[in-house]
Amino acid sequence: MKKNITIIGAGLVGSLLSIYLSKRGHTVRIYERRGDMRKEKMSAGRSINLALSDRGLLALEKVGLAEEIKKISIPMHGRSIHNPDGNIAFQPYGKEGQYINSVSRGTLNMKLMDLAEQHGVQIFFHEKCTTLDWEKDVLEFENTSGVSIPSSKADLVFAADGAFSAARLQHQLRHDKFNYQQYYIDCGYKELTIPATADGNFAMEVNALHIWPRKDYMLIALPNLDKTFTCTLFFPFEGEASFDKLKTETDVKNFFEKTFPDAVPLMPDYINEFFTNPTSSLVTVKCFPWIREDKFALIGDAAHAIVPFFGQGMNCGFEDCRVLDELIEKNGDDWTSILQQYQTLRKPDGDAIADLAINNFTEMRDRTADPIFLLQKKIEARLHEKYPEKWIPAYSQVTFSPHIRYSEALKRGHMQEAIMQDVMKLENIGETWDNPDLHEQIIQQVQH
Amino acid sequence: MKKNITIIGAGLVGSLLSIYLSKRGHTVRIYERRGDMRKEKMSAGRSINLALSDRGLLALEKVGLAEEIKKISIPMHGRSIHNPDGNIAFQPYGKEGQYINSVSRGTLNMKLMDLAEQHGVQIFFHEKCTTLDWEKDVLEFENTSGVSIPSSKADLVFAADGAFSAARLQHQLRHDKFNYQQYYIDCGYKELTIPATADGNFAMEVNALHIWPRKDYMLIALPNLDKTFTCTLFFPFEGEASFDKLKTETDVKNFFEKTFPDAVPLMPDYINEFFTNPTSSLVTVKCFPWIREDKFALIGDAAHAIVPFFGQGMNCGFEDCRVLDELIEKNGDDWTSILQQYQTLRKPDGDAIADLAINNFTEMRDRTADPIFLLQKKIEARLHEKYPEKWIPAYSQVTFSPHIRYSEALKRGHMQEAIMQDVMKLENIGETWDNPDLHEQIIQQVQH
Repeated sequence: MKKNITIIGAGLVGSLLSIYLSKRGHTVRIYERRGDMRKEKMSAGRSINLALSDRGLLALEKVGLAEEIKKISIPMHGRSIHNPDGNIAFQPYGKEGQYINSVSRGTLNMKLMDLAEQHGVQIFFHEKCTTLDWEKDVLEFENTSGVSIPSSKADLVFAADGAFSAARLQHQLRHDKFNYQQYYIDCGYKELTIPATADGNFAMEVNALHIWPRKDYMLIALPNLDKTFTCTLFFPFEGEASFDKLKTETDVKNFFEKTFPDAVPLMPDYINEFFTNPTSSLVTVKCFPWIREDKFALIGDAAHAIVPFFGQGMNCGFEDCRVLDELIEKNGDDWTSILQQYQTLRKPDGDAIADLAINNFTEMRDRTADPIFLLQKKIEARLHEKYPEKWIPAYSQVTFSPHIRYSEALKRGHMQEAIMQDVMKLENIGETWDNPDLHEQIIQQVQH
Repeated sequence: MKKNITIIGAGLVGSLLSIYLSKRGHTVRIYERRGDMRKEKMSAGRSINLALSDRGLLALEKVGLAEEIKKISIPMHGRSIHNPDGNIAFQPYGKEGQYINSVSRGTLNMKLMDLAEQHGVQIFFHEKCTTLDWEKDVLEFENTSGVSIPSSKADLVFAADGAFSAARLQHQLRHDKFNYQQYYIDCGYKELTIPATADGNFAMEVNALHIWPRKDYMLIALPNLDKTFTCTLFFPFEGEASFDKLKTETDVKNFFEKTFPDAVPLMPDYINEFFTNPTSSLVTVKCFPWIREDKFALIGDAAHAIVPFFGQGMNCGFEDCRVLDELIEKNGDDWTSILQQYQTLRKPDGDAIADLAINNFTEMRDRTADPIFLLQKKIEARLHEKYPEKWIPAYSQVTFSPHIRYSEALKRGHMQEAIMQDVMKLENIGETWDNPDLHEQIIQQVQH
């Protein structure tokens, strides 16, 4: 039984979902609040590049896009840590040959929309969701560009309209017993730019994610195909060093020159950008239920918005689509079971990656500058090399092991961290860290 | 500097707040979504009686209403526990002479509205809040009865429009960095009635709150002035014994006769009521911030909706008003400081009573039927009698000690409960419970 399916939101997740569903033979329409980014200039505000890793690639592979996207991505093999004294240290993300991919959000989204339309998906733009009532089967949009679009009935509606989902809000307002939580971290972010050098090259090592860890805040930079880097300052809203305190150009100049001395010469326009670019906030959203009968489901950020510090927002949303498609494969036309199993499987994983992402902020801004932590990473890497199945570092579980669920990665990560906390307290660990007996003792403690 | 103040919501908290503010000389207008309950019949759905205790009374005292309200209240000195075998046990709430008051929500609200109008407060009814933007100073209402009300500018807006506050939602939609959480417990509730007896008397002991504790659920009953009792069944939505399972009149009859045998003969119409009265859900709301500059504040359930199991929802909202008034006294015209201090003081207390209320559900439905728990209560009552300042049972701190903050009561309650958990494990505690040496040992463990 083929269905009429409506997806709200033509972002990364909505577009990929539409491809999966149309490949299954369903009639799919997408309603998108913004204009067509293939024809209109995108507004600023959302990060322009993203880190695509194995979970996202696996989901793209199933629709035949992985190789094409990898061609327009820049591999980042590890973290390039910029210390205040100007020294740079490199921390590999995983084993030799493992890397994450810096990719342009816009390019990726446009390719997904193109492919969706090739599969017969209709995308309607400037369509703002104003009413969604799955019980009464009412779904209304307001066309913000004045064009009149024939309204359609849908058998099934997916809300893929992001962290501030209008569809989810409708759901919250109209239906009882919807648990909902949104919370902001104390830091906001601002994007800055490192342009290409005068002779047209990258200004820093290209195959790395650059971090300037400064304990309560950090600057990061990801490479773009045009030889620029997009930098993001994650910075407290209030407090001693904060957006609140940097009021004048002199404030900004003094702060940056003292804090990021090696970055300043690479960012000719940073003071202007600091005052021109928006300061954005970072929200986590958890909610339940995600579904209603066989009629409605939340997916991607609309179901589980997370902070960006694990680079998993898009990857998690893409994984939602892949898991859903596997459940369609398994359950056939039984959409009640498909949606129920989708929720049962994905809710704990959405919660887990939300918590992992919050924790990774501390790791990135603070712990990456700590020699003890770097030694711990080295030991864990060695353990992974020697016992590739028994010890997988938490970062690798999340990033390079798409068949380990996020909820499992969180659990195993906690267990491993507890073991390593004890290990790092050992006297002389700096000398004994590569002792095979020690490795054997550590592995004995692993519970499966 | 007298202000033009708008309050959204003419419920218990909005009405009391308006009296406090008008007594301070401010011009106060209230906009209420419903009609005037003094002229129109109230719709069902909200509980018709409430337990007014010392915090609420203290707040009413300051506007001169405490004595008048006590006259139309029914004292409840303790819990009357109805066991499945028909035996009834009485558990006093506190010391001799301490009690809570069953009062009619409607009567109390109408008296507060009358008093507000006597102080010059204007109340506009059928006014639904549609836009609230404190930054742009926009406040719009839609009159649902078709009457046109002149719109007014306000210097300061209080949202007192309850758990599902429209004003708070506007706030959430329009302003960044608003942390918000709503969660439902797995139980819902339904109201039933015990009428007066044929000879016009109360059908049960009048000066008690009756409980039929049945582990995962319970029935309770509060007395009304007209000699009836309002019963409330708190019951899981789903599961073995649940609303979901009671589909037919026979289901309901069998369940009630088996579970509440002594209540059934007192409720002639319960089967009809069970299918006619709504099943309502129970939500907790936590959010932050509650205020914006000197322009906007959430108060009462709009700031901190809680479940009803500690009988503190109204009391907490009234306390919000009293504390705010004390801060006006202290800070004069400095509304930035008043609101900032209001939030700093009340947010931890709102969080604390929310958690206390959730915990008290377990106590009421399950622990009140446990002989060990009853013995613990007896020991704690004796400790309180002997050391009235050093040991105050958690229930008494919340209910009869309006000068102990909820957050303090939560902390001290946890500390005392940990001590009592160890005490109840002592061998022969059933015999030794009143030993003065034991009491001395317990008191030694109390940390202040």
